Amino acid sequence: MGNTLDASYLTTSAWRPDLFKGKVVFVTGGAGSICRVQTEALVLLGANAAILGRNVEKTVTAAKEIESLRPGAKVVGIGGVDVRDVQSIVKAVETTVKELGRIDFVIAGAAGNFLSDFSNLSSNAFKSVISIDLLGSYNTVKATFPELKKTKGALLFVSATLHYTGLPMQIHVGAAKAGVDALSNALAVELGPLGIRSNCIAPGMIAGTEGFDRLSNPDRELKDFIPLQRLGKKQDIADSTVYLFSPAASYVTGTIEVVDGAAWHIGNYLGDLYPNLCINLNGEGEPKL
Amino acid sequence: MGNTLDASYLTTSAWRPDLFKGKVVFVTGGAGSICRVQTEALVLLGANAAILGRNVEKTVTAAKEIESLRPGAKVVGIGGVDVRDVQSIVKAVETTVKELGRIDFVIAGAAGNFLSDFSNLSSNAFKSVISIDLLGSYNTVKATFPELKKTKGALLFVSATLHYTGLPMQIHVGAAKAGVDALSNALAVELGPLGIRSNCIAPGMIAGTEGFDRLSNPDRELKDFIPLQRLGKKQDIADSTVYLFSPAASYVTGTIEVVDGAAWHIGNYLGDLYPNLCINLNGEGEPKL
Amino acid sequence: MGNTLDASYLTTSAWRPDLFKGKVVFVTGGAGSICRVQTEALVLLGANAAILGRNVEKTVTAAKEIESLRPGAKVVGIGGVDVRDVQSIVKAVETTVKELGRIDFVIAGAAGNFLSDFSNLSSNAFKSVISIDLLGSYNTVKATFPELKKTKGALLFVSATLHYTGLPMQIHVGAAKAGVDALSNALAVELGPLGIRSNCIAPGMIAGTEGFDRLSNPDRELKDFIPLQRLGKKQDIADSTVYLFSPAASYVTGTIEVVDGAAWHIGNYLGDLYPNLCINLNGEGEPKL
Amino acid sequence: MGNTLDASYLTTSAWRPDLFKGKVVFVTGGAGSICRVQTEALVLLGANAAILGRNVEKTVTAAKEIESLRPGAKVVGIGGVDVRDVQSIVKAVETTVKELGRIDFVIAGAAGNFLSDFSNLSSNAFKSVISIDLLGSYNTVKATFPELKKTKGALLFVSATLHYTGLPMQIHVGAAKAGVDALSNALAVELGPLGIRSNCIAPGMIAGTEGFDRLSNPDRELKDFIPLQRLGKKQDIADSTVYLFSPAASYVTGTIEVVDGAAWHIGNYLGDLYPNLCINLNGEGEPKL
Repeated sequence: MGNTLDASYLTTSAWRPDLFKGKVVFVTGGAGSICRVQTEALVLLGANAAILGRNVEKTVTAAKEIESLRPGAKVVGIGGVDVRDVQSIVKAVETTVKELGRIDFVIAGAAGNFLSDFSNLSSNAFKSVISIDLLGSYNTVKATFPELKKTKGALLFVSATLHYTGLPMQIHVGAAKAGVDALSNALAVELGPLGIRSNCIAPGMIAGTEGFDRLSNPDRELKDFIPLQRLGKKQDIADSTVYLFSPAASYVTGTIEVVDGAAWHIGNYLGDLYPNLCINLNGEGEPKL
Repeated sequence: MGNTLDASYLTTSAWRPDLFKGKVVFVTGGAGSICRVQTEALVLLGANAAILGRNVEKTVTAAKEIESLRPGAKVVGIGGVDVRDVQSIVKAVETTVKELGRIDFVIAGAAGNFLSDFSNLSSNAFKSVISIDLLGSYNTVKATFPELKKTKGALLFVSATLHYTGLPMQIHVGAAKAGVDALSNALAVELGPLGIRSNCIAPGMIAGTEGFDRLSNPDRELKDFIPLQRLGKKQDIADSTVYLFSPAASYVTGTIEVVDGAAWHIGNYLGDLYPNLCINLNGEGEPKL
Repeated sequence: MGNTLDASYLTTSAWRPDLFKGKVVFVTGGAGSICRVQTEALVLLGANAAILGRNVEKTVTAAKEIESLRPGAKVVGIGGVDVRDVQSIVKAVETTVKELGRIDFVIAGAAGNFLSDFSNLSSNAFKSVISIDLLGSYNTVKATFPELKKTKGALLFVSATLHYTGLPMQIHVGAAKAGVDALSNALAVELGPLGIRSNCIAPGMIAGTEGFDRLSNPDRELKDFIPLQRLGKKQDIADSTVYLFSPAASYVTGTIEVVDGAAWHIGNYLGDLYPNLCINLNGEGEPKL
Repeated sequence: MGNTLDASYLTTSAWRPDLFKGKVVFVTGGAGSICRVQTEALVLLGANAAILGRNVEKTVTAAKEIESLRPGAKVVGIGGVDVRDVQSIVKAVETTVKELGRIDFVIAGAAGNFLSDFSNLSSNAFKSVISIDLLGSYNTVKATFPELKKTKGALLFVSATLHYTGLPMQIHVGAAKAGVDALSNALAVELGPLGIRSNCIAPGMIAGTEGFDRLSNPDRELKDFIPLQRLGKKQDIADSTVYLFSPAASYVTGTIEVVDGAAWHIGNYLGDLYPNLCINLNGEGEPKL
């Protein structure tokens, strides 16, 4: 799929260019769309990376593409990994440490997703999403924990906002991500005394990702339902990821960073009246003091 | 406005008829629609009551009407009360104790409400709602606290669900009710050791109340946006109130009882697709195991 | 273990004695401590019941004991059920409908629990709790859904408050219960239009249950950490269950009923100063208006 | 009190040095400890600033000190401002625009605080904190709104975590900050379509601030109750502020950035067992896979 970011990120983004020099990030789901760009940003800012995926070729190709972003970067692509099997991740950790020497940051991003109403969502389909998203996230922490203890590193889980309300057609993902949030918060408490931080990132509707247009409503543009009136960009997620791993967030742990243009905050009552009602009323005339 | 409930409540409701025999409830906003029916239920089930309001005639009339619901009931109507003035409530407490002997339950229900976008919501309009809803609730607790200590009584605040998301046109009420929720939760912790419980009730869209049709969308019926596909009834709120004051809830404190047919849980993305999408997909055919 | 409740519940509880006449409740985990007493209350108030468990003898014995609570009651004990296997529950549904004719209420209560720090909590141990608590709850809904559609019935999940903060030693249970809460909320939205309600109950520390003294701190009594200064009673949970299934809660769906004496609301900072600080300051002298 | 940050921030922090060149920040409470360092960071990174305070001399002195941090910086100190009076802030906006040309960022940070149990917290004391924290925040938005519309700027409210549980002795601040959170979320929805973002920052226990040692427990060190095992630094809050105003957060709105080392996530049950239990169990030996 090619890289989303390029070297211009070093001059146009908010960050000090060598922010992650000497650091190593370990990413499950790193060949997918969201985790991919998270990795790109970290590598551009000086980190080396290992990305894990199920498909060997896709993962190795993605690794090479990401590696090309920064001269001297090392990005290891480790295919054939099933996050539901902790041993599978343990082996990837061994490879990573052998190749890159350490693990400072972990992104637990491997996830399954599809739309289904409850009636058609079989017991196995539900189990499958819970296993990849929630058990897979747990296994990722188990396998990387010994390395994170050494580096006093940081965890980042890729969550969602679906379960803040109770979005239909996404019961399985909502349940999995609610579990992931709870996992991250409890790890922040348990592993904090060892110097390990744990946070989640909850992307809204991000353009150019697989999930993006699945909930589309034929009568309305998706962006109308988002207060900022635009879909998210993959770089929005990359930037939040950089923040959470950076020293700027060294006291930030046990949090969920929502990056959604306030999409989830819209109540349902106004329906089609939003956003025009707000634009018309707030946008014109002299505000009343 | 007349009573909503009548003696048939004693045989058709879920409750033991003499549940609140010997108890006294003190209600701010008791002449309004929601608090009125809360009081009616408690009186029907054996309690005596004092209801407070700003308008003397309206309050006294309401008290008489409620009193007529149960032979032997005593309901005192205390008009001329401004909940923004703690002394005003202190006097009503004195009257209540003189007339009814004690206070077991307190409903802090006096509230202001109107729709306004931010631009047209003046500093004074915002202050006015905060003062009535939040400061008024605090003053109600201050004034009744000595009596609640004696009876090991219970507090109930009338809140809302607006602030769970961030409903436009209701910034002022959302901020006030968020403050009320926090107040109730902290009181549950501080006053729990004295045997005093504190809870909130958060009604959704209740038919027959002043607030009911204000957010109406011309293109959709309000009930379409509510999972249970009906507006709430005033008795729904009365029943939850009975529960929270009853011995059945003697270990329930620091909670917010939402009574809204799951209205706030609908995310915004589906828009007009809800509820037909859910009805069609879940309602027909054999569920997939 | 014998029954917790007895016929005196009919005269001393808050409820109309025949509240659930003609109704049938289906309970996973019904031989355990919390679900057991939930079932007892419903049966006392007129319902028939099917309770499911893994151990055949224990389940059948419990069923007989519960049945003895009310003359004419029918309680079916179905052993050999593993909630991780949806077919296992489907068979129990068939038995229930054959024996009792219908299912109005479902309690998804089967749960695993034990204390473990993260380091010693293996991938399989985490998976085991997620499978029983979260997948098992999902399977229970899948299997009972066709019957609930017919009766416009109600679901109740047994959750917890652990994940509201991030209690150490309970990472697995917190993640599972967070998933259960999300599941219930989304079901309230999806199944509401079919007339099915879905709620959770979140018990705090309940005396006489298996989980009760596991988090005990040798230096402090557990009750000191609970604002109401007592552990919960099993009847507290039974009463909340009755409420949520009763017509009094007919507009209550998508909620989590916390029954914990406000235990989770205490912040950590005060530590040993609680509750004496609150008792001393609030309990003595004239309150300042 | 002097500056907390100095020019070394430009080389040691995570940020591109000229991140806020040409931007203007407007800060209520800017002479206090938290807002002061927030302003210092923004000015170091290129912004000009106006800080508002009640005390004229203190405010003007602070402005001069902050101005000295960066050659060419302009920092206007505007004393005599009472945030409870919207006109007082309107005048400060006029001064700011006259002196600095525009307003891009607003920090609503003016706040009152003190410890008090409920019984001794008078109606007026509660009102005072609500007025400064909540009404003052609202007034700050009202007064700056016309300028933020022009610049498509961003709001930042200084909140807290007290109300996530229900911390005793802080009922007033908890209620005020809960209101502020709701205000920010609703503004994100209403003003998003105009291009204005709104977020909160919720600091934990920050060393060197007025609030820092007030909740101290004589028997324990405060840091023991904080998973990361250290108090926050003022720079931690500054860094999060920079993030929220930076282009890196251009899709972040309607969020609450908690910066507390996971302090609020510790449940109360473990008491004095924390953190040693976690350190001992998780810190030693081989983790179990």
